Amino acid sequence: MEIHHLLFVSELNQELEKLLAPYQIEKDIRFKKEEDIQSSDLQWADAFVSFKTKKSYDYGKVKWVHSLGAGVDHFLFQKDWDENVLLTRTICSFGERISEYCLSFLLKDLQFHDRFTEHQSEKCWQPIKPRMLKESKIVIYGTGEIGQKLAVVLSSFGVEVYGVSLSGKQKAGFKQVFKTEDHCMMLKSVDYMINTLPLTKKTEQLFNDRIFSNLSQAGFINVGRGESVAESDLLTALDTEQLRFAVLDVFANEPMPAEHPFWKEPRITITPHISAVTTAEEAVQCFVETLERVENDRPLQNQVDIEKGF
Amino acid sequence: MEIHHLLFVSELNQELEKLLAPYQIEKDIRFKKEEDIQSSDLQWADAFVSFKTKKSYDYGKVKWVHSLGAGVDHFLFQKDWDENVLLTRTICSFGERISEYCLSFLLKDLQFHDRFTEHQSEKCWQPIKPRMLKESKIVIYGTGEIGQKLAVVLSSFGVEVYGVSLSGKQKAGFKQVFKTEDHCMMLKSVDYMINTLPLTKKTEQLFNDRIFSNLSQAGFINVGRGESVAESDLLTALDTEQLRFAVLDVFANEPMPAEHPFWKEPRITITPHISAVTTAEEAVQCFVETLERVENDRPLQNQVDIEKGF
Repeated sequence: MEIHHLLFVSELNQELEKLLAPYQIEKDIRFKKEEDIQSSDLQWADAFVSFKTKKSYDYGKVKWVHSLGAGVDHFLFQKDWDENVLLTRTICSFGERISEYCLSFLLKDLQFHDRFTEHQSEKCWQPIKPRMLKESKIVIYGTGEIGQKLAVVLSSFGVEVYGVSLSGKQKAGFKQVFKTEDHCMMLKSVDYMINTLPLTKKTEQLFNDRIFSNLSQAGFINVGRGESVAESDLLTALDTEQLRFAVLDVFANEPMPAEHPFWKEPRITITPHISAVTTAEEAVQCFVETLERVENDRPLQNQVDIEKGF
Repeated sequence: MEIHHLLFVSELNQELEKLLAPYQIEKDIRFKKEEDIQSSDLQWADAFVSFKTKKSYDYGKVKWVHSLGAGVDHFLFQKDWDENVLLTRTICSFGERISEYCLSFLLKDLQFHDRFTEHQSEKCWQPIKPRMLKESKIVIYGTGEIGQKLAVVLSSFGVEVYGVSLSGKQKAGFKQVFKTEDHCMMLKSVDYMINTLPLTKKTEQLFNDRIFSNLSQAGFINVGRGESVAESDLLTALDTEQLRFAVLDVFANEPMPAEHPFWKEPRITITPHISAVTTAEEAVQCFVETLERVENDRPLQNQVDIEKGF
C-alpha cells in the first residue's frame, strides 16, 4: 500500500510530532484535533492515526486507520466501518502492564493488606497466615495477547488458570480454555475472575447476573471495557456475596461522574483507566513499525478483524 | 547416627502428634512444654525438636537438635552451643512465601494503591501511570535459599536485582552480589531494599545510619529479623527521606508492645511476623525427611553452620 499523506488526529499532537521527529518519516503529515477535521482532510489523507474518535467517519480517500491505543471499540463499536479500510492497533507492553496491575490486587487480597492496616490502626498484633497464589483458581476472560501474558505470569506462581474465549482454543499458560457458551459450570469454584475482553457486540453486558449467579465469594477484576459489565447486576452480586469484591479500571462513562454509586461502595476499588496506559513513546514506535509493514505489504500482527471487532 | 528417643518441645504438641501419626515413626517420643522439661528428659533423649527455646541448655545426651522453624537464632544467638550437637532447621516454602509477601508490597507501591484509595474517597478521577517492576532497582540482603528465590522471581519481571552477602559469591537471579563491607556505593540508586538475613553477631543492628545514609527515597522491607534494625535510625531515615517507607514483618520484641512508636508511624506498615509462616504440616514433613537422613548418615542440606549461625 502506498502511503504519502498522514493525518494525525489527537489532543497530544505536539508531543507526537516531537516523538516522530527522530524517525525521519518522509511523508506529508497534518496534525489536527478531531473537532478541526474537515472532509478535505479526509480527501487528502491516505492514513488516519488517532487514539480514539468520537464521531463516525466517511473516511474518503483514507485507506488505513491506525489506533494509537490497544482498544478499537472507539472506532468500531456501534459505528459503521467501510471494510475496504485497513484498521490496525497498537500492541506493546499492555500484557506486562495488565499482569502487574492484576497481580498487585490479587496479592493485596491474598496477603490481607486491608486487614493488617486495620489491625495496625488498633495497635493489634494478630497473625493471620497469608494465602498463596498457588492455592488459587482464577478464570481469565480473553485469551489474546493480554489474557495469555497474564495467564503465563499467574501460572508461573502455580495458580490454576482457566480461560474463556469465543473459540475455546487451548493456549499455553491456561490449564483449560472454555468457550463462552459453556464455561459457567466451572465458575462455582473460582476464587478470582478477570476480564480482559475487548468491547464487541458479543461482550457488551456479558458480565451480568447470568455469570455472577454461578460465583461464590469471588473477586472480580475488570481491565477490559466498562460496557461489558451490567452495573446493577454487579452491585447485586456484591450484596448477595456472589462477589466478595471488585477492582474496576474501566467504566462505561469515563471519567466516571461523581454521582455514580461505585465511588462509595467499599467493596469496589476504582482506578482511573490506568492498567494499560500506552506511553506516547511506545505508541509512536508501534505506529512507525506498522507503517513500514503497511508500505511494504508485509504481514501485520496488529490488523483488526472488523467482523470480530478486535 | 542412631536415634531412639525423641523429645518434642512445643506448645503445639497435640497437633504435632496428630500430624506425625501417619508417618508411623517407630521411636519413643515424649511431648513436653518447655517449662516442664527436666534434666532427666535431656539424659533420656537422643533428639530435641522444637520451634524455639527460651533457655540455654546443657543438652545432656541429646545429639541432634532440630528447629521446626527456619530461623535458629532462638537456639544460638547470645547462647552457648556444644559443637558436638548437630543442629538442623526447617526448609520448606519460605522462599515462595516471602517472595509473594515482598511482591505484594512492591506492587502496592508501584501501582499507587494508597493514592487511588485516597482519590476514590474524594470521588476524584485522576490518572497516574503505574511504574513497572522492570523500571526498579532492588537490593536483597541475604542470598541464601530465601533471598535467591526472591531474586529469581523479581528478575523474571525484569527488575535489576543486586545481592549483599558475607561472601559476595555470585548467584543466579542477581545481576551482581556484593560483599557486606563494600556494597554501600551501590545503594545510592536503589529503589527498594529488602532484608532476608538471619540474626547473627554480624547482622545485629546492621541496618543503621551507616546504611540508611546512602539511600534516597528508598522503600525498605524487613522479612529477616527485627534485631537487625537500629530502630531509632530507621525513624530518622524516614524523617530525612532517605527512606520513603518501611514494611516490617519482624521486630526485636514480638508481639510488639502497644506503646512502640512504629505502630503510629504512617510511613511504616506493620505485619505480625506472617511473611514466612511454617505450617505445622510442612514442619513435620521436613522433620521426618531430616530424621531419615540423620539416621542413615546421608548429606543434610538443612544443617546449621554453628560458626556462621545459619
